[in-house]
Amino acid sequence: METLSVDLGERSYPIYIGSGLLDNLSGLIPKLAGKQVLVVTNSTIAPLYLDRVMAGLKGLQASSLILPDGEQFKTLDTLNQIFTALLERKHSRTTTLIALGGGVIGDITGFAAAAYQRGVDFIQIPTTLLSQVDSSVGGKTGVNHPLGKNMIGAFHQPKAVIADTDTLNTLPEREMSAGLAEVIKYGLIRDVAFLEWMEANMPSLVARDAQALTYAIKRSCEVKAEVVAADEREGGLRAILNLGHTFGHAIEAAQGYGKWLHGEAVGVGMVMAADLSSRLGFISEPDVARSRAIIAAAGLPVLGPSDMSVDTYLDKMAVDKKNVDARIRLVLLKSVGDAIVTAEFDQGMLRATLNDCTESA
Amino acid sequence: METLSVDLGERSYPIYIGSGLLDNLSGLIPKLAGKQVLVVTNSTIAPLYLDRVMAGLKGLQASSLILPDGEQFKTLDTLNQIFTALLERKHSRTTTLIALGGGVIGDITGFAAAAYQRGVDFIQIPTTLLSQVDSSVGGKTGVNHPLGKNMIGAFHQPKAVIADTDTLNTLPEREMSAGLAEVIKYGLIRDVAFLEWMEANMPSLVARDAQALTYAIKRSCEVKAEVVAADEREGGLRAILNLGHTFGHAIEAAQGYGKWLHGEAVGVGMVMAADLSSRLGFISEPDVARSRAIIAAAGLPVLGPSDMSVDTYLDKMAVDKKNVDARIRLVLLKSVGDAIVTAEFDQGMLRATLNDCTESA
Repeated sequence: METLSVDLGERSYPIYIGSGLLDNLSGLIPKLAGKQVLVVTNSTIAPLYLDRVMAGLKGLQASSLILPDGEQFKTLDTLNQIFTALLERKHSRTTTLIALGGGVIGDITGFAAAAYQRGVDFIQIPTTLLSQVDSSVGGKTGVNHPLGKNMIGAFHQPKAVIADTDTLNTLPEREMSAGLAEVIKYGLIRDVAFLEWMEANMPSLVARDAQALTYAIKRSCEVKAEVVAADEREGGLRAILNLGHTFGHAIEAAQGYGKWLHGEAVGVGMVMAADLSSRLGFISEPDVARSRAIIAAAGLPVLGPSDMSVDTYLDKMAVDKKNVDARIRLVLLKSVGDAIVTAEFDQGMLRATLNDCTESA
Repeated sequence: METLSVDLGERSYPIYIGSGLLDNLSGLIPKLAGKQVLVVTNSTIAPLYLDRVMAGLKGLQASSLILPDGEQFKTLDTLNQIFTALLERKHSRTTTLIALGGGVIGDITGFAAAAYQRGVDFIQIPTTLLSQVDSSVGGKTGVNHPLGKNMIGAFHQPKAVIADTDTLNTLPEREMSAGLAEVIKYGLIRDVAFLEWMEANMPSLVARDAQALTYAIKRSCEVKAEVVAADEREGGLRAILNLGHTFGHAIEAAQGYGKWLHGEAVGVGMVMAADLSSRLGFISEPDVARSRAIIAAAGLPVLGPSDMSVDTYLDKMAVDKKNVDARIRLVLLKSVGDAIVTAEFDQGMLRATLNDCTESA
């Protein structure tokens, strides 16, 4: 087992990464504020792992809530189901929520913990690669709105994250690739040596080699933790973590949440960011090809959907959280392994990128 | 104009109290993060004051949203209307929300600001006595759930509070009395000299004498600010601000939100707290009579509704936020002007208090 400490002063917490952690939960759960625990999970994960988690909570007043599975349920209505369960079961403000599942479960459970009685504790047990490398660090929680993804939420840090790599063995192939998109992102924005390691080890990662995955998860969390520790409330540096996300969110919003996986959309978005970075003279065409190649090697799409027009992209991108006073801001690559955030780019170049990185109809 | 500074480090903010402030808004609004502003108000307040507020926001990209008036609309659904308006109007994370109205508007707008894009700025313009003395300080925001009041929310501090005493001239008599309940509370929990001042000046307050009101609002905010500064996240001392509230919330929840005003329920709740404090030997019977007298002098009820049983109280009180692991905790009076929080009281005495402080059927 690897242990990483996310250093945020009095809100610091550990991330445990490794094999067999679910069978040793009682040894990993931190001291709780009270005895009440609600495990929130979904209908896909519950039959696979819920019994083992509940067995690790003996001696506590633990119960569970099983939500429907899917990004389309990451809504205020589903959030309210958690509040209703907590209130019906008379949970006080010393309760602890445990999120058992992927990013959707983590985000919605974390936001429920942030808002229930104005804030209670929560623990993350991420069961997808995406959530293990992305949601484990940063404290971002929230739900979607029909007009925008993750537009409603809070910053709320977990008390601990327990990432059992064994849970990735039940992960569908598309979700595995989607998780790898975020892993690649950490290389592209901040760590060219990690990117080179991935270029050598992508076949092992795709084949779910446990040792390779453990290293990739740990290094991803480390890079994210470095960025977040420097900028907890997302004033500046942290925005680079959104490489590919503004483009990706536009694809997800236009196609309807759930059709494209988040990581798939981000994969295409990173190709778009690299393409625009090259048009602006930041990186070379071979750098763009290199970015596209590692994304393709992870089994991800590298072109946007054929039915999306340039204007649809621009319209959806206009509601992105990074924008200042309605002006589109993007994360671009100053070089491979070094990202920047800027609103200074030629609209014509952006339109050319969007056009060229879209699949032909 | 009186100015009070609420001292919370980098989240400190000013409270302006006085007459004619709405006509000088542009001089009082702090420097904003961006140019976008959404004024959230309700259908009662909009015809009275919205034009004057909008006139004070010249040069900004300001628009307004008018919600229905009433505690029954303090819900996740209404909250979502604010998010929809912000997204439809493409407000970015540098937007500022302005809450123009009473406690419901302040709480729901503050929570919308806390959760929109994980947190944007907001300014309070409270137009009721209750919100001027209660919601101005403390950073509590949130909405109700059918199973409990204020069970969903966040701590989110405003950038400024602008309390124009002229707005109290349009306040219905019941709401005026309800606001005075909170003013009385500050005397009972922490400032016996302020209670004595009220005993001498209650007729002036009820008659809405501007000078008396300005003093009462300022002193109330000062007492609350002292308590909150000592305990921003409500770990300990701050709980004394809930004197009468556990009982009061039970009345509001059982009667259906909106039938009893919050301050009316708190008025009865403070009588109940005084009564139980006397049964426990903390204060004398004359102290109980004194508490009851000042509450009655403010035009408030001193007995709970005749159709509420002791068991209904206990059931509703079981979901209070102050409870630890499902055990009821109450704010009681150690002496007049000195409150404590305790779970150590005889259940029989509590039942006797609830029974004796209820109106005969």
